[in-house]
Amino acid sequence: MDVIQHLKSKINDLHLWSKEVVLKRNEFLIRPGAIEKHIYFIEEGTIRAYIEDEGEEQVIRFAYPNSIFTALDSFLTGKPTLFYLQAIKHCRVKGVEKNAFNDLMQSSEENARLYLMMLQELVVQQMEREIDLLTTSPMERYKRVLERSPHLFQEIPSKHIASYLRMTPETLSRVKKS
Amino acid sequence: MDVIQHLKSKINDLHLWSKEVVLKRNEFLIRPGAIEKHIYFIEEGTIRAYIEDEGEEQVIRFAYPNSIFTALDSFLTGKPTLFYLQAIKHCRVKGVEKNAFNDLMQSSEENARLYLMMLQELVVQQMEREIDLLTTSPMERYKRVLERSPHLFQEIPSKHIASYLRMTPETLSRVKKS
Repeated sequence: MDVIQHLKSKINDLHLWSKEVVLKRNEFLIRPGAIEKHIYFIEEGTIRAYIEDEGEEQVIRFAYPNSIFTALDSFLTGKPTLFYLQAIKHCRVKGVEKNAFNDLMQSSEENARLYLMMLQELVVQQMEREIDLLTTSPMERYKRVLERSPHLFQEIPSKHIASYLRMTPETLSRVKKS
Repeated sequence: MDVIQHLKSKINDLHLWSKEVVLKRNEFLIRPGAIEKHIYFIEEGTIRAYIEDEGEEQVIRFAYPNSIFTALDSFLTGKPTLFYLQAIKHCRVKGVEKNAFNDLMQSSEENARLYLMMLQELVVQQMEREIDLLTTSPMERYKRVLERSPHLFQEIPSKHIASYLRMTPETLSRVKKS
């Protein structure tokens, strides 16, 4: 059983779910300025996180079924988020309140180790993402992400992948063919 | 006492230092392809981490006295690093071997909590950095980093700060004046 499934079954056993949200396509789970007090698991659908810069949407992350996500900046700092979390398609997500989640993660050595692994994995993902952003060649960026997250290209519409890869949809289409 | 000092005194007490390195200006602590098995504390000097993209150096992080650093990609994954860690000026750094560090961080609840806090703080820093990189306006990028890390502008030569901020030294000089 993978880490996320394992964590979900613990949350089930302890009845820690405190929120369930259904989002239609394009609906928002959270917008900039709000404070995020939950961490979420996607039951169905996909979500994108983006920020706005000079009126342009900049996609920074995607979340799929069997992944855990939140407006992480706000969740970790308690400050208002800068992120939009928006449903790409019809979504059902379940949330655990921050304190309940943190208590759970500290309630046993095993859980603490699990949380540590998740954080380390997140740090590694963020480093990969930073290197993506510093990579000039669109082809290289595409190849890096394809290798790391092949499922992305099945589940997410091209226009959002293009934004995540910092290229136009036309460039993405060209590099995919070559 | 701050977190880093606290950690250093624990490492002192347990005699866990396994490496001490003196670097002249421009010398490298590690280069791409090597596997990083230590985590470091700077005693004196400053270090920059950069990657190379199409022959260009892209600065991704700085380390100062009283900060902890390593070639984090390799340290966490066990794979070869992509990073150059180079002394900006004469440096003295002390290192702890990875297993010894991990054991220490798991040796008590207090240490585990400390490590968790450090990782969470790192995740927050990485998110800030990601938003920097997605911010188009050089002035906005400058302001974000000035607010977050004012000491940077005292300790690091402008050409490296300019690289970190993804602008030319001339643009940096212009935005600083305006």
